[in-house]
Amino acid sequence: MTIRNARHPFYEFCDEALEDIRKQGRYRTFTPLARQADRYPVYEEELPSVPEGREVVVWSSNDYLGMGVETEVCEAAIRAVREHGAGAGGTRNIAGTSPLHKALEAELASLHGKEAGLLFVSGYVSNQASLQTILTSMPGWICFSDRQNHASMIAGIKGARGSATVIYEHNDLADLEAKLAAAPADAPKLIAFESVYSMDGDISDIAGTCALARKYGAMTYIDEVHAVGLYGQEGGGVTQRDGVADQVDIIEGTLAKGFGVHGGYITASAQVVDYLRSAASGFIFTTSLPPSVVAAALASVKLVRAQNWRRAKMFERVDTFREKLRAAGVPFTLTPSHIVPVPVGDADRCKTISRRLLNDYGLYATPINYPTVAHGTERLRLTPGPFHTDDMMDEMVNALRVLLAEVPIPASGQAVIDKAA
Amino acid sequence: MTIRNARHPFYEFCDEALEDIRKQGRYRTFTPLARQADRYPVYEEELPSVPEGREVVVWSSNDYLGMGVETEVCEAAIRAVREHGAGAGGTRNIAGTSPLHKALEAELASLHGKEAGLLFVSGYVSNQASLQTILTSMPGWICFSDRQNHASMIAGIKGARGSATVIYEHNDLADLEAKLAAAPADAPKLIAFESVYSMDGDISDIAGTCALARKYGAMTYIDEVHAVGLYGQEGGGVTQRDGVADQVDIIEGTLAKGFGVHGGYITASAQVVDYLRSAASGFIFTTSLPPSVVAAALASVKLVRAQNWRRAKMFERVDTFREKLRAAGVPFTLTPSHIVPVPVGDADRCKTISRRLLNDYGLYATPINYPTVAHGTERLRLTPGPFHTDDMMDEMVNALRVLLAEVPIPASGQAVIDKAA
Repeated sequence: MTIRNARHPFYEFCDEALEDIRKQGRYRTFTPLARQADRYPVYEEELPSVPEGREVVVWSSNDYLGMGVETEVCEAAIRAVREHGAGAGGTRNIAGTSPLHKALEAELASLHGKEAGLLFVSGYVSNQASLQTILTSMPGWICFSDRQNHASMIAGIKGARGSATVIYEHNDLADLEAKLAAAPADAPKLIAFESVYSMDGDISDIAGTCALARKYGAMTYIDEVHAVGLYGQEGGGVTQRDGVADQVDIIEGTLAKGFGVHGGYITASAQVVDYLRSAASGFIFTTSLPPSVVAAALASVKLVRAQNWRRAKMFERVDTFREKLRAAGVPFTLTPSHIVPVPVGDADRCKTISRRLLNDYGLYATPINYPTVAHGTERLRLTPGPFHTDDMMDEMVNALRVLLAEVPIPASGQAVIDKAA
Repeated sequence: MTIRNARHPFYEFCDEALEDIRKQGRYRTFTPLARQADRYPVYEEELPSVPEGREVVVWSSNDYLGMGVETEVCEAAIRAVREHGAGAGGTRNIAGTSPLHKALEAELASLHGKEAGLLFVSGYVSNQASLQTILTSMPGWICFSDRQNHASMIAGIKGARGSATVIYEHNDLADLEAKLAAAPADAPKLIAFESVYSMDGDISDIAGTCALARKYGAMTYIDEVHAVGLYGQEGGGVTQRDGVADQVDIIEGTLAKGFGVHGGYITASAQVVDYLRSAASGFIFTTSLPPSVVAAALASVKLVRAQNWRRAKMFERVDTFREKLRAAGVPFTLTPSHIVPVPVGDADRCKTISRRLLNDYGLYATPINYPTVAHGTERLRLTPGPFHTDDMMDEMVNALRVLLAEVPIPASGQAVIDKAA
């Protein structure tokens, strides 16, 4: 009997799943935009009707400081391509470790005041591989995980078979303590949390979390991907700003947001890094980051550490943008971070406003829908940066004012918007 | 009660695990080597005693064709850095999709004769995310997995909770058929395998595997990471060489080996790619590849497709190297691929010979030890390429001849070496 592969039920499953996704208004359309390094945050959109393309001002980039278009950073990348080529050519063990990799790991360890650093191909992989490897190292691990933790942390925690997971309410230390107290005293414990939660823009109480960790003998693992480069005197993140980096066992970060390049990392004690280096499948069996990426990241970290004005400039721009939104009566969520969510409350409305911002105004703000955020809390997530001028801000504020009034609000979204306003 | 974090049992666990690793002779030491783009396969080793560094000829790179140092590839990277900056600045959905990403995905789909392609940050992630997402999509999946599959495939298969895994003996179609026949007829089935197995250098019977897949209604997923660029008239891999690409449902590949750059991908039918794009956490929640990496990869794929002489040159070099080894009486495993394993049979011996190759001869061949290969099958894994000259080969053959004679063979390794010789 011959059965055609095309009849495999997975194909029908995909068709049906995609139809469901479309019905829910959350079919994913990626807008191809070409960043213009000399005009950031201006990108070019390819349009069939406009041969030369159209200029778009992007308001959703995670290159918060614009380090990815900084001349010194780009020149470091270019120099490394010329000297070492376009790729690493192997895993870290198979000729893929260059002196640049070693230097960047040392720089990141120094940034966070830790003994050692370890590079991964992405922040996602650094979380997934590190958490999964730690939580399968000894029997009986219990991971206390903040309910709002990023998908990459959840992937690592869930992937650690044999360990137990206790989810505590978001940023709720009373709940965390109750759950720590209820757990067996002798079980190895890990508290996994973030500093800046990127979708709501709120910031965790790191000192309080670490105090509980000490009290109950837990290790701490913090994801600082939306904070490194932006917070603390040298951009060491909220752990640096709050003076608590030494209280956190493992600090994880990214090179792709505040530092503007690519890749992820952890920093920790020498033996923890050495163990992960020797045991984490997602670190071992993968081609290392290209020397050009590493060189650019190293240049960026050094600049960001030395130049506090970059952070000051970003926060000045964020404050100015909030003032303009407030003056125009545009509702937004006031967060303690640099992130400016504008609640929209419905997937279709969110996509419509985002599309009209692009088509009618040449402004790009990503619609954030389920599964990234919960149903009913759909939003535009704006990240003003040092390169957003007052004029750009006025355009965005005006466009939001017009579109939020023009595009009807579904009943289900009203409560969320009222709360923010 | 206050418990210091430093007393957390994980620290002691790490110390003990690392001591065990050292005792087993498999402590990982990465040799920092800086690839010299203008002299590939020459790298520079930083030495405290030699201020200007030392030249090392690398014999273990996975940049098999040297595409990572090809001028057109490097210039494409440099141009993209100048135009678009050093990083992507966001996920695919958050301003991280450029026209370059779309163009590369289309190029890869065309290379493999598939409807669509999807980029991931690495080959490891492409396997892990795709397999895990597929195998958790419907209830009752059974994955038939070759015993020698790569760690990244195993990570995806193991990560798919709720699915069943049946491991079949390496490249053993009789065993695969017995196991397919024994499984419930109506369960959704996936056969996951590789074309070129990189440590042994053997090649699977793809047509035979696909025939079984048709007979038992299974889907097929093939990892071609050590084959893309190298096999087939356009470098489409062994599936292209054997004319069976259309019989495989999902072809996975890398941009970091034969194409010399960075990143991974899958190609498949439009709906499978669209589903993975919408459902795979490891695709969705991660910063997309930098435009410079994508531009370099696109340039490389186009060159490799058009220029068959690159493949011919590589295989000529591989043949010449084997002849020289044979003439000198150096044992090696004759594989049907481009990979030349030299069996050493013991972790310590392997590391010693590798270290002496480097220190005494300025030649680098990575020691391949457990857990990458089984105990007792430790080896040097050599990958001769178009840039290895006859003189370089003579040096390596001579050095191997001397060191294999000088460094004692432990009893446990003898059988393996006899078999190869």
